[in-house]
Amino acid sequence: MLTLDKIYHASYVLKDVIRPTHLVKAQSITDECEIYLKPENLQITGSFKVRGSGYKISQLSAEEKERGVIACSAGNHAQGVALAATKYGIKSLICLPDGAPISKVEATKAYGAEVCMVPGVYDDAYKEALRLRDEKNYTFIHPFDDENVIAGQGTIGIEILNEMPDVDAVVAAIGGGGLLSGVACAIKSLNPNIKVYGVQAEGAPSMYESIRQGKPVKLDSVSTVADGIQVKEPGEHTFEYIKQYVDDIVTVTDDEISSAILKLIETQKMIAEGAGAAPLAAVMFNKLPVKGKKVVCIVSGGNIDVTILSRVIKRGLLMTGRQQTVCIELQDKPGQLLAVSKIIADLGANVISIHHERASEGTDVNGCYLRIVLETRNFDHVNEITKALTNAGFKLV
Amino acid sequence: MLTLDKIYHASYVLKDVIRPTHLVKAQSITDECEIYLKPENLQITGSFKVRGSGYKISQLSAEEKERGVIACSAGNHAQGVALAATKYGIKSLICLPDGAPISKVEATKAYGAEVCMVPGVYDDAYKEALRLRDEKNYTFIHPFDDENVIAGQGTIGIEILNEMPDVDAVVAAIGGGGLLSGVACAIKSLNPNIKVYGVQAEGAPSMYESIRQGKPVKLDSVSTVADGIQVKEPGEHTFEYIKQYVDDIVTVTDDEISSAILKLIETQKMIAEGAGAAPLAAVMFNKLPVKGKKVVCIVSGGNIDVTILSRVIKRGLLMTGRQQTVCIELQDKPGQLLAVSKIIADLGANVISIHHERASEGTDVNGCYLRIVLETRNFDHVNEITKALTNAGFKLV
Repeated sequence: MLTLDKIYHASYVLKDVIRPTHLVKAQSITDECEIYLKPENLQITGSFKVRGSGYKISQLSAEEKERGVIACSAGNHAQGVALAATKYGIKSLICLPDGAPISKVEATKAYGAEVCMVPGVYDDAYKEALRLRDEKNYTFIHPFDDENVIAGQGTIGIEILNEMPDVDAVVAAIGGGGLLSGVACAIKSLNPNIKVYGVQAEGAPSMYESIRQGKPVKLDSVSTVADGIQVKEPGEHTFEYIKQYVDDIVTVTDDEISSAILKLIETQKMIAEGAGAAPLAAVMFNKLPVKGKKVVCIVSGGNIDVTILSRVIKRGLLMTGRQQTVCIELQDKPGQLLAVSKIIADLGANVISIHHERASEGTDVNGCYLRIVLETRNFDHVNEITKALTNAGFKLV
Repeated sequence: MLTLDKIYHASYVLKDVIRPTHLVKAQSITDECEIYLKPENLQITGSFKVRGSGYKISQLSAEEKERGVIACSAGNHAQGVALAATKYGIKSLICLPDGAPISKVEATKAYGAEVCMVPGVYDDAYKEALRLRDEKNYTFIHPFDDENVIAGQGTIGIEILNEMPDVDAVVAAIGGGGLLSGVACAIKSLNPNIKVYGVQAEGAPSMYESIRQGKPVKLDSVSTVADGIQVKEPGEHTFEYIKQYVDDIVTVTDDEISSAILKLIETQKMIAEGAGAAPLAAVMFNKLPVKGKKVVCIVSGGNIDVTILSRVIKRGLLMTGRQQTVCIELQDKPGQLLAVSKIIADLGANVISIHHERASEGTDVNGCYLRIVLETRNFDHVNEITKALTNAGFKLV
C-alpha cells in the first residue's frame, strides 16, 4: 500500500541522493493564471526518475543489493537506476533497445551502469531484461508500477506543499503514471482541496483512455515527440491510484508541446524534454480550468536529444508566428528579388534563408520560385507581409 | 569610490528586485577540477544586468526618478533597466539599433519600457540616447562604467562567498567590465587568496588588450557569437578596477563558446548565451590554471536568440565529433547507397539527413555525390566510419 508515511520516509532517505529543486515563478508566459515550475529537469540525471529508483534501491535487502539490479529503459529511468545503484555501491545492468539515442546510452554508462544493447524496440529490450533477471538473479527495477518507486516520485508532492502551501493546482505528465500517482497521493492526503491534473500526449493517451473506459487499456501504437511518456499501457497500481486521486486528465498535441518547450527556453532559459513541457503546454493552451489560480507545473525532465531539440525549436517558432516560409512565383527578370526584399525589409522582418529555384516542374519556362524563410514577430506580422506582397502583385504559392 | 560597503548595501537593496540564484554543481563536464555554476541566466530578465541597473535606479534622487531614465542597449541591459525602472515606478526609454533581434525588443517592451528604434548600429543608438537625455533631461544609465552599476553586479561576489567560502577561483566574462569589476572587488576585499579570472571572446578582446598595453584600448572592430560581450572599449573605471583586482584575463574562440553552450544544455539543461558560457569554455579548454581546484563559473545570462541557438547547437555537435558530414563520390549504379548504408549502420552511427546529387559540376557524367549527415559518438567514431568507407573503396571528397 502506498501511504503518506512511505512518501515521507522516501523524502528522508533521498536527501543524500537528490539535488534540491526550488519552485520558480514563470513570468511572461500567460496572464491567465500564476504559473510556478517545479524544475526536475535541473535534478541530477536531468529528471525526477532518480527519486523513484533511488528509494526503491535503498530499500532492497542486503542480499538483493549484493546481487545487483537490472532495468529496461531507453531514457531517464536508465540514468536514474544507474546513478542510484552507483550511489549505493551496487551493480546495475541496463537493457536498452539498440536504436536508443547515443547521448542517453553514453550518459547511462557515465553514471556507472553496465549497458546491454538489445536488437529491436523497447518491448524486445524489456523481454531480454526479464530473461537476464531470471538467469542472473538480479532485482528488476520497474520504471513505474512499483510502490517504492511511486513513493520516491511522490516526494515531489511533499516538496511542492512545503514550499507553497497555498497552491491551487498541481499538473504533471503521465507516461506509465508513476510520477502522478505519487504526487497525487501525497497532495490529496495532505490537502484534498488542491486540484491534481494529469497530462498525456495526444499520440499516446493510454491512461486517458483507461480512465475513460474504467479499466487499463493497452494501445496498439503510440507516437509523440515526448518520448518520455510514450507508453502503451498504464501500470496496474498506477491506474488505481490515478483513478482514486487525480481530478482530471487532458491531452496535448506535439505542436503544443513544442511551443511550451520554446517558451521555457526563451522565458526561463531552461531545457525541458517533451514530457517535461507537457504540463505547461496544457496550461498555455487552456486545457485546464485554472484561470486566476496558482498552478505548479512539474517540469519532469530535460533529457531531450539535441537534434530533436533543434527540430522542436523550429516547430515552436512556426507555431507561434515567429518564423514563416513564404514561397513566391517570380517572373525570371531582373529586379524581382529587389522588390521582394524591399517589402520585407520595410515591414521589419528578418531574412533567415533564401532559396531561388529556376525551372522547376510547375513553373513555366521563364518562371522561378523564391522561397524565403523569415523571422517574424507574430501571426499579425506574417499576415501584414503576405498582404503587402500580394498587393504588390506577387503570386504566393 | 567602489567599496565593499556599497556592494553590501546593494545586496540589501536588491533583495526585493532579484531572484535568488543558487550555485549548481556541474557534474560530468570535466574531471580536471570541481566546477560550480552561478546561474544568472535563471535570474529575472535572464541575466545579471538587472542587479546593476536595479541598484543604480534605487539610488536616484526623487527628482531624478520623477524625470525618468534612458539607456542604450541591444540586449540584457535594456531588459534590466526596463524591469528595474518599472519596479521603482519610474519611466524608462530604451534606444535600440534597428537591427536588434525582435525577441529582445519585445522583451524590453514587456518589462514596461518605451522603446526607441534608431536606424544604424549600436553607436548610432548610443548617440541618439545621449541626445534624448539632454533634450528631455532623463538620467542616463550606463551599462557598465558607473560605480553604482558596478556595485550592483558585485553582489554576485558576495553571494558566491556566502554559499561557498572555500572556493578557490571565480571566473566571469568581460564585455565592458562591470560584472567582473564588482565581483573582483567584493571577493578580493573579503579574501585576497581567492583567484579571480576574466574571460573575453577572441573576436572582442578589448580589456585583454588594454591590460596588456597598460591603458584602455579601443578596438576598430569586434565580432563574436557572444554578443553580450562584444564591446570595443573598456570603461575608464572598469579598466582601473580590473587592473587592480583581477589575477588574469584569457580569451576563448567562438567554437569553444559553442561547445560550452552545448555542454550546459546537455548536462545542466540550461540555456546560456555566448557571454554566459565563456567562463565555462575557458575552464573546459584549459585556459586557466585551475586543475584540482574548486571553481565557480558565472553564467551571466541566457538571452540567446533562438535562431542563433540552433546554429550554435549544430556547431557544438560538429566541434565535439557528435555530428559529421560525409561526402562520398559514387558511381551512379544500383546498390551503392545500400553498401554505404550498411557500413554506417554496422558502426552504429545514426543518419540525420541524406542528400543525393546527380551530375554536379566536378563529377563525370555517370557520377554523383552522396552527402550524409551523421550523428556520431566522438571523433574516434568518425574516424572509424571514414576509414571503413575508404577501405570499402568509396572515395570521400
